[in-house]
Amino acid sequence: MPKISKKGLAMPESPIRKLVPFAEGAKKKGHKVYHLNIGQPDIKTPESAISAVKNANIEVLEYSHSAGFESYRNKLSEYYKNHGLPIDNQDIIITTGGSEALLFAMGSTMDTDDEIIIPEPFYANYNGFSTASGVKVVPVMSSIEDGFALPPIEAFEKLITAKTKAILICNPGNPTGYLYSQEEILKLAEIVKKHDLFLIADEVYREFTYDGFKHYSVMNVPGIEENAIMIDSVSKRYSMCGARIGCIVSKNKEVMATAMKFAQARLSPPTYAQIASEAALETPQSYFDEVITEYKDRRDTLVNELNKIPGVKVAVPKGAFYCIAKLPVKNADDFAQWLLENFNYNGETVMVAPAAGFYSTPGVGLDEVRIAYVLKKEDLIKSVQVLKEALSVYKG
Amino acid sequence: MPKISKKGLAMPESPIRKLVPFAEGAKKKGHKVYHLNIGQPDIKTPESAISAVKNANIEVLEYSHSAGFESYRNKLSEYYKNHGLPIDNQDIIITTGGSEALLFAMGSTMDTDDEIIIPEPFYANYNGFSTASGVKVVPVMSSIEDGFALPPIEAFEKLITAKTKAILICNPGNPTGYLYSQEEILKLAEIVKKHDLFLIADEVYREFTYDGFKHYSVMNVPGIEENAIMIDSVSKRYSMCGARIGCIVSKNKEVMATAMKFAQARLSPPTYAQIASEAALETPQSYFDEVITEYKDRRDTLVNELNKIPGVKVAVPKGAFYCIAKLPVKNADDFAQWLLENFNYNGETVMVAPAAGFYSTPGVGLDEVRIAYVLKKEDLIKSVQVLKEALSVYKG
Repeated sequence: MPKISKKGLAMPESPIRKLVPFAEGAKKKGHKVYHLNIGQPDIKTPESAISAVKNANIEVLEYSHSAGFESYRNKLSEYYKNHGLPIDNQDIIITTGGSEALLFAMGSTMDTDDEIIIPEPFYANYNGFSTASGVKVVPVMSSIEDGFALPPIEAFEKLITAKTKAILICNPGNPTGYLYSQEEILKLAEIVKKHDLFLIADEVYREFTYDGFKHYSVMNVPGIEENAIMIDSVSKRYSMCGARIGCIVSKNKEVMATAMKFAQARLSPPTYAQIASEAALETPQSYFDEVITEYKDRRDTLVNELNKIPGVKVAVPKGAFYCIAKLPVKNADDFAQWLLENFNYNGETVMVAPAAGFYSTPGVGLDEVRIAYVLKKEDLIKSVQVLKEALSVYKG
Repeated sequence: MPKISKKGLAMPESPIRKLVPFAEGAKKKGHKVYHLNIGQPDIKTPESAISAVKNANIEVLEYSHSAGFESYRNKLSEYYKNHGLPIDNQDIIITTGGSEALLFAMGSTMDTDDEIIIPEPFYANYNGFSTASGVKVVPVMSSIEDGFALPPIEAFEKLITAKTKAILICNPGNPTGYLYSQEEILKLAEIVKKHDLFLIADEVYREFTYDGFKHYSVMNVPGIEENAIMIDSVSKRYSMCGARIGCIVSKNKEVMATAMKFAQARLSPPTYAQIASEAALETPQSYFDEVITEYKDRRDTLVNELNKIPGVKVAVPKGAFYCIAKLPVKNADDFAQWLLENFNYNGETVMVAPAAGFYSTPGVGLDEVRIAYVLKKEDLIKSVQVLKEALSVYKG
């Protein structure tokens, strides 16, 4: 029998995959399961996007340009410029989700056994993309104690070797909700310039910031034009996760020419989804204002409720729609399974994402979970109530 | 300045990329350019697919299952069974085009520096996917002299090393139009069983066979269930290239579990395109009958017309919608550029794909071009007329 690749064997499973059968089991028992574990927003997709697809007059569903519709790239460039980001049409390649943009970024800048430094906890699929690209993740620890702020630059410098090719950040962060300050981004800029590294910034949650905090993009930093690669996506901004449209952005012409070769090999990003994404750019500011207000309300509700539970510590997120909570349990993985398998409060239970899967260092974050506040307020309140009752009886 | 990866530098350009500016130049001069160089059919997408998307009632454009809609996989399994292929729901993962299916297949079965044997000439993007996957392509030569039939099995055996992990075929073939016989597929089956290799078959043109020839799939070969991986796509079958929906199919559970990890990392295939693809399965047989009749007519026209040109040799395709033609020129690359840059016949010229880009061995196929018969008959006749006039005056 032919053998699977070592790379394939090393590909990580999703951190919540083990829990899925238990969630199904709970549902079979008739229990309602609140999904705090996923980043699928319940927010409506903008009407402009939906109706553009409905009204598209297509006879032959053709390939688009490998870099995406030119009209879309032009409008996207305008969108960025209106948001203070100096991004031109030719700095953009439209990709199949932020996922493909990350694969193009890694493929264009890193070879087998090259190293990429990522502050942990980080979006679990960075492990998958790194493994698929043959790249080694070198984690640098951030901590719930200071809300997952940028680790000291010395911690990065200690990890830089001849094989280090890039630093990858997610800003605002999934799973932490942490928003890097301008000062922190400038520190990163200094270090990538000094060591000739790429700075890859996954900024797909850019628009989701609270409390008056402003997002500061790597595309705004003077002097690192050749180092900065931005990853973006329509998934969260317009609640269009299923579109699978993102982009890779850089002023580095070599990076873009190389990413373009990857783009050409796969022919084009999906056409219908580009129609939706181009039209989504017409979404009025009022949509975002409402969405941000809604998420801020949800965040406040979630954090307030969690803080009422004895022994729970939560890092207040300044952006995105996740937070990491430290629970008074030894092993959040076991606890999450127990919640689904053995617990219910008035016929309801919750599914959370154990945070260990977001750390690359083994044994870290075992008592933490990631909670996504993509449910409406009433459901968040009920969910935390379930958690509270569960923790009061859990013996694990 | 940070450096591009070696992999990125090695990523091949599309074989026609160099010609694109010359085609644009010809158009600027007011010349009509017949595009014989691309595989974008002009056939209408089935109405069922278009209207399913128009009528979809979407409020939140959500992620789908990472393996694709379950309803789609169920119906696709039925489609295959109706076509004599014993493929179950769990043997299928829906991908973003056949392109992603190939990347998943390579990633699941091959590590850096592993080798994959491919009969050449082959679909140029196999080079790109191999480079992106860190895999080395080992070509085995097929020839226009016998219509690009399967090379003798001894030619394969000579190339097998400890690093060989798979044989990849495209059946019917792009760029050759060659359809492997059952006997040829059984020979391949024997060799992959003997050497414990995977047999990856790109069967996206499966439905396009002519002259009563029947496609024989690797999924029909008894005894190689653990070796066979089929790549499929809706792009050509339903003239839905822009959907970007394909699938990877195998009975090998380890392969599917591994491919699923790659699929989970990128979350899901595009939702709108899956709606279109699921509905496309309702396309009546009459659509295909018409399309096949149309392509057969086009093929006959093209081959007849080409055969009228002195010094031109063409391998009559039994499937797909490409053929390789040998021209009485030294360098088809130069000729193709000259056609666009310096020639026109009554204000018209043609763009062809130089075949050298479909060979992995340097210096082979220099006098060959790939011609796609995706244009209507009248245009094919005019195109070949242009070619004939051009060849009669070309001095290159």
